[in-house]
Amino acid sequence: MEKTLMVQGMSCGHCKASVEGALKKLDGVSAAEVNLESSNVEITYDEAKVSLKNMKEAIEEQGYDVEA
Amino acid sequence: MEKTLMVQGMSCGHCKASVEGALKKLDGVSAAEVNLESSNVEITYDEAKVSLKNMKEAIEEQGYDVEA
Repeated sequence: MEKTLMVQGMSCGHCKASVEGALKKLDGVSAAEVNLESSNVEITYDEAKVSLKNMKEAIEEQGYDVEA
Repeated sequence: MEKTLMVQGMSCGHCKASVEGALKKLDGVSAAEVNLESSNVEITYDEAKVSLKNMKEAIEEQGYDVEA
């Protein structure tokens, strides 16, 4: 399954790496790609293994706000 | 000795940590503090041990441009 989340506060390559790294560490997430210009992250995941809540929490733990 | 260098491209806490960390690793640098709002870093160093050139290179290796 694919989903794009809007994320506030990502400003540079370090931010990109932090968010992508945190998501990819989750079991069930097979891909995560941050686009800094559009302030979002595209995630490919197995919804049987990982929930949207888990993914949002992983991003928030890195210090960024997830919209909706 | 103290010197403030203007650094371009530092945008977040990760950038701040990268630049400060790179400077503090240099022998002779006793303090380094990035101010993101004013795009600079204040460095306290022993000019007998470390040169301005060394410090600029350390910042540039992290991917940031140093002015003058």
